[in-house]
Amino acid sequence: MPRFRLDLSYDGTDFAGWQAQSARSGARTVQGVVEEALAGLAGGQRVAVVGAGRTDAGVHALGQVASFDLPRAIEPEALQRALNGLLPADVRVRAAGLAPPGFDARRSARSKLYRYELDTGPVRLPLRRRQAGHVPWTLDEARVAAVAAFYRGRHDFAATASSGGSATTTVRTITRSEVAFSGPAGARTLVYEVEASGFLRKMVRSLVGGLVAVGRGERGLPALRAALDGRDRRAWPAPAAAEGLVLVRVDYAEALTEGPVLA
Amino acid sequence: MPRFRLDLSYDGTDFAGWQAQSARSGARTVQGVVEEALAGLAGGQRVAVVGAGRTDAGVHALGQVASFDLPRAIEPEALQRALNGLLPADVRVRAAGLAPPGFDARRSARSKLYRYELDTGPVRLPLRRRQAGHVPWTLDEARVAAVAAFYRGRHDFAATASSGGSATTTVRTITRSEVAFSGPAGARTLVYEVEASGFLRKMVRSLVGGLVAVGRGERGLPALRAALDGRDRRAWPAPAAAEGLVLVRVDYAEALTEGPVLA
Repeated sequence: MPRFRLDLSYDGTDFAGWQAQSARSGARTVQGVVEEALAGLAGGQRVAVVGAGRTDAGVHALGQVASFDLPRAIEPEALQRALNGLLPADVRVRAAGLAPPGFDARRSARSKLYRYELDTGPVRLPLRRRQAGHVPWTLDEARVAAVAAFYRGRHDFAATASSGGSATTTVRTITRSEVAFSGPAGARTLVYEVEASGFLRKMVRSLVGGLVAVGRGERGLPALRAALDGRDRRAWPAPAAAEGLVLVRVDYAEALTEGPVLA
Repeated sequence: MPRFRLDLSYDGTDFAGWQAQSARSGARTVQGVVEEALAGLAGGQRVAVVGAGRTDAGVHALGQVASFDLPRAIEPEALQRALNGLLPADVRVRAAGLAPPGFDARRSARSKLYRYELDTGPVRLPLRRRQAGHVPWTLDEARVAAVAAFYRGRHDFAATASSGGSATTTVRTITRSEVAFSGPAGARTLVYEVEASGFLRKMVRSLVGGLVAVGRGERGLPALRAALDGRDRRAWPAPAAAEGLVLVRVDYAEALTEGPVLA
């Protein structure tokens, strides 16, 4: 059976996250609608889809990657067109390709890049409310940048993980952690980009919660450092809202991306 | 009765436009929800609201301006807070103030600035589908810029107006008409900004339709010029979709903006 790779983009607002739940729950998930569309192409047979990142409810994707086997050969471009004809408008296949041998969207992933957009200012703008978080506080931008720099490198991130995760270790290495501010004074937008080989459950939103807590002066960087060192989840600031988070890109070892040409 | 000015921001996706329709139509309009919220502050009495621009169904606003009289005095900041507590999340009051004598949001307006965002590329991105138009064509950027330059100045824009408008003359003067492109090759985003003292019905979207038709090579600038000169609506390209359009700002004569301090 040929193995395929899809690059997916979605608006997570109306999804209960990536992962399919029990059929009885009735929750609408990205994995669920993709598997449903694929079943339509596989004669009604269930096609199990693996996603690189299990995005939470409300979290978006520009470049989620999924892998699966199909019972029959199909041209990647035809697969992309057929799926985009079957999928709802809030999920799109940006590229489809035959995957190289052994490719598994989740286990083969080498790193993931997430972006978080946070608007500040007294009034939340309606047009931004589905794609950016919002806090009504002015943030100290130098302090926010200092926290982002502190996150870089290898740490035990247990304090930033929500309970219920399945990870065997909570140590992760952050290879990129950068903030940029734009917009008028009094209504600035913070864009935070963070890249690592892997993330714990709710970790990115917790990292943003740390940026905000220090940026608004609710606590200092030393207190944040102590919470991380103490692996103390209760001492860590609350995670930022889901709507600001986007899975931007998943990277794989070169050997795994040099498969047949992507459509 | 004191007269007030509101600066409003809204996501037009779920509205049948600005203008309140007959109660029987049941259509949800921005004017309708604002008047409903104001009635709640005026003891159930109807408060007639005038908007600077009658945005169409699906068109957004960053800085729509509205004016109305209230039967009682109220601090502008308290008015803003009360309205934002009563309004749905897709409409926000960004500022409220007592209006100077004679202020009428529509008739006093000196100029309006609209912005249109258009994504190009083979696949429409789900997160952008509520706030940007989309065409699957690569546009010739120099040609698009030439059309934008051609629009500047005083012209009879009858060819770009939809029927049913109430304007007595179709001559308008465009003081600003600029395009900018951003994003990766093959998936560029066009941002078009156009400013004038007034616009005809569907005029901005028709102007964008002209940019697209010439940019994709469907017709040349001379043909577009001939359609404008001939006031020939049927020879003008189809208007661009509503979702890409935003009323950014309305400007008033200085004497009218120097009223009491805005909240």
